[in-house]
Amino acid sequence: MSQTVELVKENIGVYTNPEHKLWIAPAAPSIDEIKSGSALAPGEVVVEIKSTGICGSDVHFWHAGCIGPMIVEDDHILGHESAGQVVAVHPSVTHLKPGDRVAVEPNIPCHACRPCLTGHYNGCESVLFRSTPPVPGLLRRYITHPAVWCHKLPQGLSYEDGALLEPLSVALAAIDRANVRLGDVAVICGAGPIGLITLLCARAAGAEPIVITDIDQGRLDFARELVGGNLRTLLVERGQTEAQVAEGMRAALGGLEPDVALECTGVESSIGAAIGAVRFGGTVFVVGVGKNEMRFPFMRLSTREIDLRFQYRYANTWPKAIRLVDSGVLAAVRKLVTHRFDLADAVKAFETSADPKSGAIKVQITNL
Amino acid sequence: MSQTVELVKENIGVYTNPEHKLWIAPAAPSIDEIKSGSALAPGEVVVEIKSTGICGSDVHFWHAGCIGPMIVEDDHILGHESAGQVVAVHPSVTHLKPGDRVAVEPNIPCHACRPCLTGHYNGCESVLFRSTPPVPGLLRRYITHPAVWCHKLPQGLSYEDGALLEPLSVALAAIDRANVRLGDVAVICGAGPIGLITLLCARAAGAEPIVITDIDQGRLDFARELVGGNLRTLLVERGQTEAQVAEGMRAALGGLEPDVALECTGVESSIGAAIGAVRFGGTVFVVGVGKNEMRFPFMRLSTREIDLRFQYRYANTWPKAIRLVDSGVLAAVRKLVTHRFDLADAVKAFETSADPKSGAIKVQITNL
Amino acid sequence: MSQTVELVKENIGVYTNPEHKLWIAPAAPSIDEIKSGSALAPGEVVVEIKSTGICGSDVHFWHAGCIGPMIVEDDHILGHESAGQVVAVHPSVTHLKPGDRVAVEPNIPCHACRPCLTGHYNGCESVLFRSTPPVPGLLRRYITHPAVWCHKLPQGLSYEDGALLEPLSVALAAIDRANVRLGDVAVICGAGPIGLITLLCARAAGAEPIVITDIDQGRLDFARELVGGNLRTLLVERGQTEAQVAEGMRAALGGLEPDVALECTGVESSIGAAIGAVRFGGTVFVVGVGKNEMRFPFMRLSTREIDLRFQYRYANTWPKAIRLVDSGVLAAVRKLVTHRFDLADAVKAFETSADPKSGAIKVQITNL
Amino acid sequence: MSQTVELVKENIGVYTNPEHKLWIAPAAPSIDEIKSGSALAPGEVVVEIKSTGICGSDVHFWHAGCIGPMIVEDDHILGHESAGQVVAVHPSVTHLKPGDRVAVEPNIPCHACRPCLTGHYNGCESVLFRSTPPVPGLLRRYITHPAVWCHKLPQGLSYEDGALLEPLSVALAAIDRANVRLGDVAVICGAGPIGLITLLCARAAGAEPIVITDIDQGRLDFARELVGGNLRTLLVERGQTEAQVAEGMRAALGGLEPDVALECTGVESSIGAAIGAVRFGGTVFVVGVGKNEMRFPFMRLSTREIDLRFQYRYANTWPKAIRLVDSGVLAAVRKLVTHRFDLADAVKAFETSADPKSGAIKVQITNL
Repeated sequence: MSQTVELVKENIGVYTNPEHKLWIAPAAPSIDEIKSGSALAPGEVVVEIKSTGICGSDVHFWHAGCIGPMIVEDDHILGHESAGQVVAVHPSVTHLKPGDRVAVEPNIPCHACRPCLTGHYNGCESVLFRSTPPVPGLLRRYITHPAVWCHKLPQGLSYEDGALLEPLSVALAAIDRANVRLGDVAVICGAGPIGLITLLCARAAGAEPIVITDIDQGRLDFARELVGGNLRTLLVERGQTEAQVAEGMRAALGGLEPDVALECTGVESSIGAAIGAVRFGGTVFVVGVGKNEMRFPFMRLSTREIDLRFQYRYANTWPKAIRLVDSGVLAAVRKLVTHRFDLADAVKAFETSADPKSGAIKVQITNL
Repeated sequence: MSQTVELVKENIGVYTNPEHKLWIAPAAPSIDEIKSGSALAPGEVVVEIKSTGICGSDVHFWHAGCIGPMIVEDDHILGHESAGQVVAVHPSVTHLKPGDRVAVEPNIPCHACRPCLTGHYNGCESVLFRSTPPVPGLLRRYITHPAVWCHKLPQGLSYEDGALLEPLSVALAAIDRANVRLGDVAVICGAGPIGLITLLCARAAGAEPIVITDIDQGRLDFARELVGGNLRTLLVERGQTEAQVAEGMRAALGGLEPDVALECTGVESSIGAAIGAVRFGGTVFVVGVGKNEMRFPFMRLSTREIDLRFQYRYANTWPKAIRLVDSGVLAAVRKLVTHRFDLADAVKAFETSADPKSGAIKVQITNL
Repeated sequence: MSQTVELVKENIGVYTNPEHKLWIAPAAPSIDEIKSGSALAPGEVVVEIKSTGICGSDVHFWHAGCIGPMIVEDDHILGHESAGQVVAVHPSVTHLKPGDRVAVEPNIPCHACRPCLTGHYNGCESVLFRSTPPVPGLLRRYITHPAVWCHKLPQGLSYEDGALLEPLSVALAAIDRANVRLGDVAVICGAGPIGLITLLCARAAGAEPIVITDIDQGRLDFARELVGGNLRTLLVERGQTEAQVAEGMRAALGGLEPDVALECTGVESSIGAAIGAVRFGGTVFVVGVGKNEMRFPFMRLSTREIDLRFQYRYANTWPKAIRLVDSGVLAAVRKLVTHRFDLADAVKAFETSADPKSGAIKVQITNL
Repeated sequence: MSQTVELVKENIGVYTNPEHKLWIAPAAPSIDEIKSGSALAPGEVVVEIKSTGICGSDVHFWHAGCIGPMIVEDDHILGHESAGQVVAVHPSVTHLKPGDRVAVEPNIPCHACRPCLTGHYNGCESVLFRSTPPVPGLLRRYITHPAVWCHKLPQGLSYEDGALLEPLSVALAAIDRANVRLGDVAVICGAGPIGLITLLCARAAGAEPIVITDIDQGRLDFARELVGGNLRTLLVERGQTEAQVAEGMRAALGGLEPDVALECTGVESSIGAAIGAVRFGGTVFVVGVGKNEMRFPFMRLSTREIDLRFQYRYANTWPKAIRLVDSGVLAAVRKLVTHRFDLADAVKAFETSADPKSGAIKVQITNL
């Protein structure tokens, strides 16, 4: 083991459990394991996590104990949006060294199944994904991780920026798979964190015009501040029919039918409205999760040849994400971080993230 | 007008109406209009229809009076799967002459809207489609039609073959849009006429293995006779869950997860089973129509990145369809015609087509 | 004919001939033909041309008398980048009226051949293209044109802007066909008018980083002013090998191999350098024309699976071009117009456009 | 090490060297190394090679000493088209066991570079490819190889079949990347082994009509026997211009312009003819290698928007290849093996393969 960074603090992590508790407690690997090198398998490094964003899924595991088939069945460490500093590397690792600043891509795919071999490692049949039970998450002081999934940060990117690369990766994967192109007429459904980052990416990809929808005017105002001029917004009123919302989308677009709707709410009626709005041959692209079953307007999909497409995590996005933030193309993503808490205050950080009245967009936990 | 074919019989057509009647009566254009040339606008020809297939949608207009928003509101001529002989041409028409044998592509798009200009004239914003109310259909002795949508038949294709090119076009559009490729693992849901033709096309496109499903063993047996060796079949039992059917599909495929499911039933549970069966990143491609709204397994679609795609009619398929039948690649499509009736017996033809006990796959009405 | 705009001036046009002369002379249609309505076929309008850009191909027809197989064999009117005001419409035209401000899409495709029906009307087998011999160009005071190819200008776009939509269409078609996407690493070869507009479009589509090459430092400086920060430039020295230029491209990109090279010079050695630079599986996309035959590094193309792709004119770009300039996304395209001349001074305009020492990027001829 | 198969014969291999010699000599791993387990790294197996096909590149390494930048600089073992029986496995290997019959995919990619992670491991930046200097080939009695690149053969496939999966993979990769689809009009240039297998695949993918070209009538006759009815052939005469050959291709296709040309000769004039023949927007897809530089008809490529695309080896083809041969879809590929020699007669096998007068299509070396 090669190691030059001083390790003084005990390793701790942020846990939840099936009883919906949330607490901080000691975590693996221990300082002794790190120092002795026993923490590391071939190809792995130890990273001291410096910044971690709280994702809606973290809150959901805490509050609901599951997301679909992924169930919290034991004490479970949360967190998968992280960046930090390498503090130790296995001798087999050549492209990283202690002191390197890295963003952590929180998946460990097998490299041998069909999805892996065809470039879709997000569909790996035996993937380990940090914070998806039972794989412990990154909300610790020290973690081990394969070096190949630790991406070096350039000078221009802080740890906070590095922790934003994970939600940014979700949006970049969506823009790529949804094939958003220069001059596309676009709808973004939902102005939460993923909707806002997707908005930034759609704008950077040249979509024009864009309308973003939400049921909260404050979020729409935040969106407008985020991207500056020309953004169109649609406040969706509870009780409106899907047809009314679809009509509102087209009206906000000056009568144009969208080429693509990027659905970031996971709400059935929002998806239905998007299906009602897009043009013949258009795409409704669903980012994120929702109810196990949903009702869709089948005949509209059929007679308009609408593609209903979906996304699960991401693949091969970090290098691009780093490039786009560092160059300034997506610099505005930094404005998403509205609240920061020290690791010791992680519980308060989660409470803030979970409270709609907090006005929080992205809450980060720092360990600087 | 140039005209060399003798016209002796009165023009008649097969009508339905909002009271679900079905009858034969005189139809436009009249023999006098044809002879005088007044029937023809620039670019048009008169075709003596020789063979017309009955489509499920014809029966549906008769029995239900509507398909989604398309409603029979008056006396209405059915039929859109036709071939015949050109008997008169407008002087502006240069590539057809009386005596030419043609298959009729039953759409008249505008050539100026965005779908038309981008090659998707099936989405034309002001299309006239033969037999979709209020546009009269082709089940007449004589019809007028733009020459550009009348495709010359080679010597090897009979009028009966020519009338099959329309349902074949549906399947070819599906295979093309669903991107079925050599070596794809495929499911065909439903062994009705469209399912069977889609099966022939999937086989011709190199899909292997293929499993076809139906709730009727007789249809599965017909499918097996149609394509010969190697076809796998799955009898779906009423009452089976979607998960059970999905499991049955994979078992029939020797444990392989399908790359693509070509859904030709329009039934909610069949679509759900297909979604349950396809691989990560696979496609469920829906051919044809169904209920206005349907419930789908959303989380499965999302966590498996499944594309749910749809098709509406066809564009640019006739030249390819002619080539593939004439060369023998899709010669087996001819076996689909199980019953033939004279135009004078059109009512009996419809009754046969509508009767599940008749064993009819494709019923054609001939005027030879 | 409906006509409310006063017509006072004689119709004139800018001609060249096989003797490489360039002059102004009376042109069709005459004022009398316009006033009587005899100038118009069904679907056509008369447009008073207000602004026309000079294209490199116009200069080439003048100086060389041909471009590949397209040969000036008689007195021939130039110009195909134009916008103007509708002054008369055929009664069959409903979506335009006298007084409307329009940009002219200079092609008249047949709407019936395979390229037309499949959405690629730029490949129309019997297209008439304005200014390609023997079809007279748009550099006249009055022209007739099909209404469907006259695109209404919004308030925000001047005639000068309208005339820029043609070269912008070339770049938009390239960006679309080359599939330039958010985060793509890109090379633009050549900082002439098409290279610069392609640069603007690649930037708007989110390509990052971008390096643009030229043999003229002044043009590279102009490029940098045009797009602001972050643009990388590479001055290509005469005598450099293709391998040296390829290496220079990668060095300018910080060591990254480009995903795509957009080749806007049509020069053999520039294309060869681009082939040497792009990544495994990358694309070299050639915009524009060059020698009849060229020598390419075949084994590099083969062992790196590089796609060598090409573009001919455009299809379906005007609506998008209007949207992108009007919204401000591509507002910078306006900076391309460096010189303006009155129609009466057309010869001087051409001389300026043809003179490398003039510093002209885009010369426009106005008739205001 | 788990090992149940008896090992009695010494390991030998077929070598060439920079002096263009060809001989058989002892090779690694030795029987002792195999028996002791020291031959195997984690993840590896020992395979007793039973059948190996001779590729044109093997002959080229022998006769020319290089292919482009790949140079024989030392004693070098040839062969990369092999199948055999597993005789030993490293304890870490779970999906293979001694006695299993496998086809060897002759590449060992890194799984960590961008091409690998995006599913294009044929572009791996540090690939080891069997028989490409300095990586020793498979023409040995025993070889070691990663288990993940050894594909189990079903009962229906012999070792001889297994050895055919490598050239079949080349063709399958071409058909996939060239996007050959049902009803495509296709040209195959060249009726050598790769041209013939590509022909079989194009036919299985539904291309129709197909014309295959060659300068040898005997090969065209073989092609016609191989696929049965409907194949069109074009004998190319030395001295014909590219335009004449292009015209011949279209004539053989009944006047149709090909959608795609699959170029399997690597000869400049053949590629030029293909470029001259394909339709607007068509594809010329180059399989295989040729001169370092070639001259192409640039203006034809440009004004017809022709995609010139290339292929390097293959990725993810073996499972599909096994499925397609085993099911019978590509059973005819077996007819390609015209000559078989025992491993002891390897030199004679190579001489036969290299002799145009031998009539050999595919020569295999067996060790049964």
